[in-house]
Amino acid sequence: MKIPIAIVGCGGMGGRHLLGLKELASSDMNNITLSAVCDLRRDNAEHLADDAEELLGSRPLVFDDMKRMAEAMPDLQAVDITTDARAHHLVASTALDLGLHVLCEKPLALTIRGCNRILTAQKRSGKYLSVAENYRRDPMSRLTKALLDAGSIGRPELFMDISASSGNQIIITPWRHKKNMGGMLLDGGVHNADMMLYYLGDIDQVYARIALWEKTRYRPEGDGAVSGFYQRWFGEMPESIEATAEDTLTAVVNFNNGTMGQWTQSYAAHGRGFGHKVIYGSAGSLRPGGTRNGAPPVLAHDGQDEITGSPLLDLVPDFHLDAITSNLFGADRLASYDIPFPAADRKLLAIELYELAACVLNGTSPEVDGFVGRRAEALCYAAFESSVLNRPVSLDEIESEQVGSYEAEINEELKL
Amino acid sequence: MKIPIAIVGCGGMGGRHLLGLKELASSDMNNITLSAVCDLRRDNAEHLADDAEELLGSRPLVFDDMKRMAEAMPDLQAVDITTDARAHHLVASTALDLGLHVLCEKPLALTIRGCNRILTAQKRSGKYLSVAENYRRDPMSRLTKALLDAGSIGRPELFMDISASSGNQIIITPWRHKKNMGGMLLDGGVHNADMMLYYLGDIDQVYARIALWEKTRYRPEGDGAVSGFYQRWFGEMPESIEATAEDTLTAVVNFNNGTMGQWTQSYAAHGRGFGHKVIYGSAGSLRPGGTRNGAPPVLAHDGQDEITGSPLLDLVPDFHLDAITSNLFGADRLASYDIPFPAADRKLLAIELYELAACVLNGTSPEVDGFVGRRAEALCYAAFESSVLNRPVSLDEIESEQVGSYEAEINEELKL
Repeated sequence: MKIPIAIVGCGGMGGRHLLGLKELASSDMNNITLSAVCDLRRDNAEHLADDAEELLGSRPLVFDDMKRMAEAMPDLQAVDITTDARAHHLVASTALDLGLHVLCEKPLALTIRGCNRILTAQKRSGKYLSVAENYRRDPMSRLTKALLDAGSIGRPELFMDISASSGNQIIITPWRHKKNMGGMLLDGGVHNADMMLYYLGDIDQVYARIALWEKTRYRPEGDGAVSGFYQRWFGEMPESIEATAEDTLTAVVNFNNGTMGQWTQSYAAHGRGFGHKVIYGSAGSLRPGGTRNGAPPVLAHDGQDEITGSPLLDLVPDFHLDAITSNLFGADRLASYDIPFPAADRKLLAIELYELAACVLNGTSPEVDGFVGRRAEALCYAAFESSVLNRPVSLDEIESEQVGSYEAEINEELKL
Repeated sequence: MKIPIAIVGCGGMGGRHLLGLKELASSDMNNITLSAVCDLRRDNAEHLADDAEELLGSRPLVFDDMKRMAEAMPDLQAVDITTDARAHHLVASTALDLGLHVLCEKPLALTIRGCNRILTAQKRSGKYLSVAENYRRDPMSRLTKALLDAGSIGRPELFMDISASSGNQIIITPWRHKKNMGGMLLDGGVHNADMMLYYLGDIDQVYARIALWEKTRYRPEGDGAVSGFYQRWFGEMPESIEATAEDTLTAVVNFNNGTMGQWTQSYAAHGRGFGHKVIYGSAGSLRPGGTRNGAPPVLAHDGQDEITGSPLLDLVPDFHLDAITSNLFGADRLASYDIPFPAADRKLLAIELYELAACVLNGTSPEVDGFVGRRAEALCYAAFESSVLNRPVSLDEIESEQVGSYEAEINEELKL
């Protein structure tokens, strides 16, 4: 049995999700039918429908209004929301109120208030809400988590997540540099935040400084691995843009289990970029595996050679990927993989899509539900608010909207 | 003309300073005579006098009481304080009150209150007070600073100072793990703090978390480059010790010029150690040169090869080392050097010693005076206090003793 869904939002991310559906359809575990596509920009919707017909063999119906789509398609069960993040709270709430299950791209909404609107709608509707957080679904992330849970480094003590890159280039698309559209520290940072929570558990507080260093950004000459999905819109990119979203963050993160976290993320680093992630524990160190590049975790114990790749599996005899991940990646115990980035990307999207449909079919709960999705976003916003208030800020303060000075202007613009 | 001085404190650090004096004496710029040595442990003083006789050709007088030494030697002009840091405030204040100029090993005192006692004594006495901070005196540090001042990376924006090492080993000596004797985060951290202030200017506030992860530490099997100086006392090291000083720090540092600082220092990191220092600026990145290893800075600009070694000198045409540094390192414009660690170590000590004597002879001021030395220490204590108070703490609050909960128990034990 297949769940009929619609993709809502037919820009670059909609196209990526279509590739995820194609990946799923090519497997023997497909549980989804793409019945419709919907976008305010009808040309985008038509374009995605064309692509879908070519990739999936049948053309989804095309809509430019979600309510009309729901009226016209009473059998539709779910939407996959890949719109501009500014619209997530409206689209997701409306979909839930229309009785549709929702898979929503991250960030769940552009602000915490937006997230809370969606969570309220979900409670009202009783429908499933899943957030399309892909990083943790990578087999290398699963192996990293299994190694942590198996005690391979003992008690976690110190976590570092450091990255610095990008200088003054426009990253993928101009909106990623606009505070009121979802800047890089939210759009990229929410991945880092989710991984911290996934690996090391809940976080109490964060203290951070954020800054906007590169106020003008320039169209890059080439384009990176992800940005290929956005090639169609590359011509619309101006030579330069004014950035309004902060591009640099440095933070101390306090995990509930006592782990000390250090989080530095710069999208304005000139010269030589740099990145390093590591978890130090009472019995060793662990560098998490990569996402979508197949790089395995690297484990080290005092005075011994590093352990990586297949020998890691000996340390986690009970480690098994779930059925859909095993199916798509070709093994249920995987210590590395050699798959091109775009293929790995669409496999992770296929897993997200499959999971939502499986929840509908089996009555199970999605792993990254609205609360999990909001928590990662709350870590980002706690960091932003901390920088405004110059004090540590708790994630609970953020989720309850006790503190919200940073997001206030975004909420105002969104009429939230 | 040579300034007669005494080494006060004849343990491992006294021995290192003697090697510095030997280095200076072997040059054609010697301005110091070692007239006496003094230690509460007379066997240590006799031992250092023996070494001095062998190295310098004449035996300094031996004392176990500084006041009696001053009475017995009316021509003595300065002391070089290399005692246990717990005694710095007493020894330095007494020396200043006895009319002696002071070169004091870092940290200036074990607590900020101790520093303030010394600064008060200095004001009263009008004598010179210099802190033996060696890192910034390295020619590679001088070159790094010159590159920053010449604008080679534009406006500094983000600084990272990250190091993780040592697991559960005793580092050099047991006292470095005792809060009330000066733990590693102070003893080692004050170097990092001084370099931050040296490279990037004054610091307003810091937010930090510190923790003691390794409560029991074990005697290492080998010994590192520095610890050779302490070989004589290695037999006194127990198999294991109880640690009371925190061993891990992670912090966000707010520089007055707006640079965002990220400072992580762990002496409890198991598995694979890690270290990275870098300054990102509006026009490039700069990895500072090493200390005592001759490693040059590494400069990078967008889309270009890294620049290191001799080509760096073209960017700083006005860069010249001072006379004593040029003399000892063999050139007044140096882009790297190939000198064994112990030799580089004693050259830097010779520079510190020379500078104090030069101040006395010429009426000039030492670079790292009591205020500069206290400032670096205030950054460490601001971090420690921040962790106690869970809020950002300013260096001014620390120096004025408005905040001092972390150091209170140390002051109590020191009767300060």
